[in-house]
Amino acid sequence: MSSNFFKGISKVKYEGEGSTDPMAFRHYNPDEVLMGKRMEDHLRFSVAYWHSFAWPGGDPFGGQTFERPWFGDTMELAKLKADVAFEMFDILGAPYFCFHDVDVRPEGENFAENSRNLEEITDYFAEKMQQQGTKLLWGTANLFSNRRFMAGAATNPDPEVFAFSAATVKTCMDATHRLGGENYVLWGGREGYETLLNTDLKQEQDHMGRFLNMVVEYKHKIGFKGQILVEPKPQEPTKHQYDYDAATCYGFLQKYGLENEVKLNLEQGHAILAGHSFEHEIATAIALGVFGSIDMNRNDYQSGWDTDQFPNNVPEVALAYYYILKNGGLTSGGTNFDARLRRQSLDPQDLVAAHIGGMDICARGLKAAAAMLEDGGLDAALKERYAGWDTALGNSLLNGSLDEIAAQVENQNINPEPRSGRQEILENYVNRFV
Amino acid sequence: MSSNFFKGISKVKYEGEGSTDPMAFRHYNPDEVLMGKRMEDHLRFSVAYWHSFAWPGGDPFGGQTFERPWFGDTMELAKLKADVAFEMFDILGAPYFCFHDVDVRPEGENFAENSRNLEEITDYFAEKMQQQGTKLLWGTANLFSNRRFMAGAATNPDPEVFAFSAATVKTCMDATHRLGGENYVLWGGREGYETLLNTDLKQEQDHMGRFLNMVVEYKHKIGFKGQILVEPKPQEPTKHQYDYDAATCYGFLQKYGLENEVKLNLEQGHAILAGHSFEHEIATAIALGVFGSIDMNRNDYQSGWDTDQFPNNVPEVALAYYYILKNGGLTSGGTNFDARLRRQSLDPQDLVAAHIGGMDICARGLKAAAAMLEDGGLDAALKERYAGWDTALGNSLLNGSLDEIAAQVENQNINPEPRSGRQEILENYVNRFV
Amino acid sequence: MSSNFFKGISKVKYEGEGSTDPMAFRHYNPDEVLMGKRMEDHLRFSVAYWHSFAWPGGDPFGGQTFERPWFGDTMELAKLKADVAFEMFDILGAPYFCFHDVDVRPEGENFAENSRNLEEITDYFAEKMQQQGTKLLWGTANLFSNRRFMAGAATNPDPEVFAFSAATVKTCMDATHRLGGENYVLWGGREGYETLLNTDLKQEQDHMGRFLNMVVEYKHKIGFKGQILVEPKPQEPTKHQYDYDAATCYGFLQKYGLENEVKLNLEQGHAILAGHSFEHEIATAIALGVFGSIDMNRNDYQSGWDTDQFPNNVPEVALAYYYILKNGGLTSGGTNFDARLRRQSLDPQDLVAAHIGGMDICARGLKAAAAMLEDGGLDAALKERYAGWDTALGNSLLNGSLDEIAAQVENQNINPEPRSGRQEILENYVNRFV
Amino acid sequence: MSSNFFKGISKVKYEGEGSTDPMAFRHYNPDEVLMGKRMEDHLRFSVAYWHSFAWPGGDPFGGQTFERPWFGDTMELAKLKADVAFEMFDILGAPYFCFHDVDVRPEGENFAENSRNLEEITDYFAEKMQQQGTKLLWGTANLFSNRRFMAGAATNPDPEVFAFSAATVKTCMDATHRLGGENYVLWGGREGYETLLNTDLKQEQDHMGRFLNMVVEYKHKIGFKGQILVEPKPQEPTKHQYDYDAATCYGFLQKYGLENEVKLNLEQGHAILAGHSFEHEIATAIALGVFGSIDMNRNDYQSGWDTDQFPNNVPEVALAYYYILKNGGLTSGGTNFDARLRRQSLDPQDLVAAHIGGMDICARGLKAAAAMLEDGGLDAALKERYAGWDTALGNSLLNGSLDEIAAQVENQNINPEPRSGRQEILENYVNRFV
Repeated sequence: MSSNFFKGISKVKYEGEGSTDPMAFRHYNPDEVLMGKRMEDHLRFSVAYWHSFAWPGGDPFGGQTFERPWFGDTMELAKLKADVAFEMFDILGAPYFCFHDVDVRPEGENFAENSRNLEEITDYFAEKMQQQGTKLLWGTANLFSNRRFMAGAATNPDPEVFAFSAATVKTCMDATHRLGGENYVLWGGREGYETLLNTDLKQEQDHMGRFLNMVVEYKHKIGFKGQILVEPKPQEPTKHQYDYDAATCYGFLQKYGLENEVKLNLEQGHAILAGHSFEHEIATAIALGVFGSIDMNRNDYQSGWDTDQFPNNVPEVALAYYYILKNGGLTSGGTNFDARLRRQSLDPQDLVAAHIGGMDICARGLKAAAAMLEDGGLDAALKERYAGWDTALGNSLLNGSLDEIAAQVENQNINPEPRSGRQEILENYVNRFV
Repeated sequence: MSSNFFKGISKVKYEGEGSTDPMAFRHYNPDEVLMGKRMEDHLRFSVAYWHSFAWPGGDPFGGQTFERPWFGDTMELAKLKADVAFEMFDILGAPYFCFHDVDVRPEGENFAENSRNLEEITDYFAEKMQQQGTKLLWGTANLFSNRRFMAGAATNPDPEVFAFSAATVKTCMDATHRLGGENYVLWGGREGYETLLNTDLKQEQDHMGRFLNMVVEYKHKIGFKGQILVEPKPQEPTKHQYDYDAATCYGFLQKYGLENEVKLNLEQGHAILAGHSFEHEIATAIALGVFGSIDMNRNDYQSGWDTDQFPNNVPEVALAYYYILKNGGLTSGGTNFDARLRRQSLDPQDLVAAHIGGMDICARGLKAAAAMLEDGGLDAALKERYAGWDTALGNSLLNGSLDEIAAQVENQNINPEPRSGRQEILENYVNRFV
Repeated sequence: MSSNFFKGISKVKYEGEGSTDPMAFRHYNPDEVLMGKRMEDHLRFSVAYWHSFAWPGGDPFGGQTFERPWFGDTMELAKLKADVAFEMFDILGAPYFCFHDVDVRPEGENFAENSRNLEEITDYFAEKMQQQGTKLLWGTANLFSNRRFMAGAATNPDPEVFAFSAATVKTCMDATHRLGGENYVLWGGREGYETLLNTDLKQEQDHMGRFLNMVVEYKHKIGFKGQILVEPKPQEPTKHQYDYDAATCYGFLQKYGLENEVKLNLEQGHAILAGHSFEHEIATAIALGVFGSIDMNRNDYQSGWDTDQFPNNVPEVALAYYYILKNGGLTSGGTNFDARLRRQSLDPQDLVAAHIGGMDICARGLKAAAAMLEDGGLDAALKERYAGWDTALGNSLLNGSLDEIAAQVENQNINPEPRSGRQEILENYVNRFV
Repeated sequence: MSSNFFKGISKVKYEGEGSTDPMAFRHYNPDEVLMGKRMEDHLRFSVAYWHSFAWPGGDPFGGQTFERPWFGDTMELAKLKADVAFEMFDILGAPYFCFHDVDVRPEGENFAENSRNLEEITDYFAEKMQQQGTKLLWGTANLFSNRRFMAGAATNPDPEVFAFSAATVKTCMDATHRLGGENYVLWGGREGYETLLNTDLKQEQDHMGRFLNMVVEYKHKIGFKGQILVEPKPQEPTKHQYDYDAATCYGFLQKYGLENEVKLNLEQGHAILAGHSFEHEIATAIALGVFGSIDMNRNDYQSGWDTDQFPNNVPEVALAYYYILKNGGLTSGGTNFDARLRRQSLDPQDLVAAHIGGMDICARGLKAAAAMLEDGGLDAALKERYAGWDTALGNSLLNGSLDEIAAQVENQNINPEPRSGRQEILENYVNRFV
């Protein structure tokens, strides 16, 4: 039985580039095979429950703009919301979704009630997932919206909040495990500070390290096979967030002995806020061995906050997928649309069309990335540029010492001549594919 | 014999707050004792040779504005430059200075000539330091200005450049050691990339890690007792610099086994470019155990590049020293003025006055920091805020597991109530001292 | 009869710099005379009703943190809110306040009900103002929070919204006039765009120009003697706001013939978001003849959104007041604290202390500014720097033509030699006063 | 006779999308007709003399990387440089070029020598232009690199610098006129300030206004028919530049009575530095009636300075051309590549390939823009969104008064209901074309 919310909107079909139908895919063709794998299996699209079904359209200067029949805080409305959500998964042919506890259940009076509510909705989801074949990319706990978390969750000065947070994560991991989730994510939106004046950086990070170790321990205890992912973001809502960016998270994971247990969920918008390109964060995580999954969106380059817009720039998306594909693809990660409608986009059609656009942009990016890899031009250029390191000199240097090398430079009068970096030629090369 | 450059400018004296003489100290009183230590021994001021004596006043849109009698590339002019520099150290009563190889010696045709030139000027310095009592805070190698380094030094795709860089660092460490330098600094201005398209992140960082290990090995080999310091900066001149910020450097040091051997030289302007406050970088390095020394300057908040201005905001400087003093002070580090005149500040008087202003600002900041520490208000507030972690609940939580904690939260109905973070009250408190 | 909200907090007294009482003024002494005027009459402090009494403590990632007894949407609660607000004005000795319609009245079902509600609360205010002596610095209409304004007020594509906005402004001007308001402010939080793709820039700006002309016409019609002020902001909540900064507003006012009728209300935080210092915006508005009033707060330099924090940096505040005093002071403008508590600052004491801190910072800044003006050092330096324009050459040039001047340069071989800009010396000078 | 610099590089040909030749056009086909006009006549490409032939490859942390046979300051080398430049114009088939005086002539001892040098090279250019058919898009004076301009040109505190600047502009306008230049540009790289402390904003802007009026007067005097263009930039090299952005320039032009005489030369990188998208600046200038020409490049979104890279993002370029085409095209303006090689791109091939890439990106953008205009989807959506303003209500409102409108809103109970802004659907639409 249909909720009627998407009345008049049918299952989205692939019609090819020639199509002018705004409600059809022009590029995303799930069964098309690239580099030996179906496009759906490459991209592993996921819909973010929060933005699409829980966000009311507010911003710091204005209130709710969306009027959804399921808004409200009862179990009945939570189920109506789930009905609509699964209808959209079906309309889009989205194989995955992601959720926070607070997106899907009514808020209870206390932890026990929250847990019961989450369990009830988990059962409801399980049934729908079974029927429809939708899978869970990841679950997560929202430890940032309720006022109890205003000064942090794992890093709260108040141990009661640490306890409440740990308990909540336990229930969310249980729900994720029960629903066959392929990953579990932690985003520390309040793990950071508003002012150093009231903050003990070291103690807070030690608590965060211990908390994350507990998560890993619990994962093994219950036999959850999914990846544990941490999601970097530099700031907002806090002035500073401890999981600043990929490199910072890596340092943190090493410090607390977790670099082999935990990987990263990278988001384009968060990369931008940290002063990086998205491909930088991806390539960095790969180089450090902690790449996990992506939150696909885009940040407005002229806005200093998290705009969470649907992706729409193929050249950028293509580079992101290039590094991912080169590294073997998304494996157990996915492409989660952590993107929300603009608050003026009131209509159900806007919600579906936004996802269609995002999926098509990703499909175009993926196809370009695959073509570049198959052509091999970038890789060949890279090999040539670093070829000196495969020579005798290159090999010997890394085993040398400063004084030995100094003697060698002096004796052989080594006086290196710079060679072109060929950046524009490589950029032009990329533009052949995007 | 005087160079005559500072003709008419006498040794700067402390005259106290009432003075209106622009060429006197109003706050910096070297012998004044704070928290049991002389102000000079707290602040450990150092003049940066490059900005004050080697920089011609150019910017990306304009050429040289300064006309200094020592500009040129001969040994004779290098010695005249040294004469003037040591005169200024004396005028200011600056106990330390810092230099790069290229600041102090003429550029040779090759490595051997560079080495000889550096040795000659090192001898010249040694004599002057002996006479005048000036000390060397740190030495460093400029591995970024010459075109041979355009694609990196330790991370250059060409192993010959790696070799040339290693050899150069060897000579700079030798010079630093010979001059009794208390630290040796590495700033990787070209260790990063202009485009990912031509960059192998992993290989470059592995080379950088090996290079830094060689530096540490050589330090021990020659018995150099000073600290090895790495200086974070996020970008500029490159699009991305590997030593992005304190947290990133810490991850890097851990990865290459160097977190106990290498510390950080933090700069205000670099902190700003990385999206941090200066006190954030200092507090972070302290929390991670890698705080070393500071480069004191300020960055214009409305400019997106490194403006390297002399510090002039007491409230900001006071917070920086607050965290340093709380952590035991600068120890073997110092306050190096990595600051340059505006290119319109043509006169010798400008150069001296800029340092006087910077030293006075630091002195005010230090005095405020010491007063806050002695008053103890911030620390007391911090202790109170985290007091819960000293209770039985606090202690037990860190040894618990998610499921045990969840049971406890449910059974005891733990439902934390938020408490005020009191940020404005703490900010007002600080303003009593600055 | 007291609301009890500020129980235990007494009227704030001036106790002088020596005081360590966090609830006393250390610098703000209303009756102290500077440059022939009482400090209160210089600063003309105003409390912003919205931040202090209407804002629930939410941010884009979290909900309400404040629990105020007057939250809710009834007339009774609106009056309780007013009681508390006026109690705080009294506690602080704040001579002025400012408000939007929606801050003070319950939201009605339609325009008529809004108007009636506003009128009722206006009467209530009038009585309190009379009793207490508090005055209204300015009133304004909130044309950005309600979903009807999501696509703009005066610039909405839907003329009905233009009409609703015009009607609302009429009632707010009436209320302001009735309460003796000294200014009326328009902040166009939604007058801008989210995407150019759906925006007709020219038509929207023409509508905005016409709207502002209506405001001026209505002012004259009702005999309102206050200033009409426009408040620049570059973005947030929209991607782009038409009233970007002072210079942009000036161009707009000229285009629509309003440069002699409308002035600017400048905010520190908005200046920062536009890439300017606060003193830049003030000095620019003064140079263009459109300076009106200030919204005093501060923006976190590392955050890309409007943080609206209470001011706490004396050097910055001093420069702002320096340019204002030099231009004759605030006249009919004032110092409105458009600043809000951090959302973790839950206690009534936080609210009062934040204002105390802000008022003290402004008082320190004002005293420094007055001292600099009385000393006259900056002005003297300026006169000397531009002295050439008072010579015969200077005078003749501005009446010349390119070819005449070229002939003169060639014939007289004019070959100018640069002179020092003395920036550091001037910065040091300022630091004698702050 | 060939300079041999581009040895082995032949005239670039259009080979179509299928080509994999890095030295061929894949999209730019000069004779292809779009919307009734040849592509060459739409795009009006111009090569910037300074970046391609005068820039040595330095940056704030490193010196020259390029080793060009024509570097040096003699007339002979200036002519060799011109030979190479015209060879490249020919290789690319670039119809236009642009230059500053200092790009093309040796620096003289004084104004008279500068003038003579410029005249000699102007003659040399005239001959080459005649032979080759290359045209001059615009000329300009470099009033920012020489140290005499360090504190401004027209806005210098020293009237002698004003005089020298006026004289220099006179000679550059003469040269531009003689070479049939279609525009004359003024970029005020030093017209702004480093610190407000030593700056009289009002006097400086009055001088700048008078200077620009002199330029317009001289244009009419000599019968120059080209457009006078001002180029906005917010900062860099100065902290603040008066010609901040399009809206600021418009206010300035109005103030000095020039809004009908002077138009704007807009640059992508400058837009980004001012916090705007390129299409914003274009659309704003068009809405204000002052659009003139474009400097095509791109700014790295993660760098806070002017990176002047060759354009490579089709979606962005397409939107820029969309607004230009919709407004009737470039008319007397052009697409000037104010873009420079990365300093590691040492080879002649890099220089040519960078332009090929830029021209192809622009061609793709133009084709997409033309296709969108011909399809008409965006325009139709715009018309529909603003349709209310063509109704009786819309018409009447703009002639109404606040009180009349308030009465109408109350009486008719006007209570507007928001309508979707459809941003994502419009973005998807654009992605059909790019």
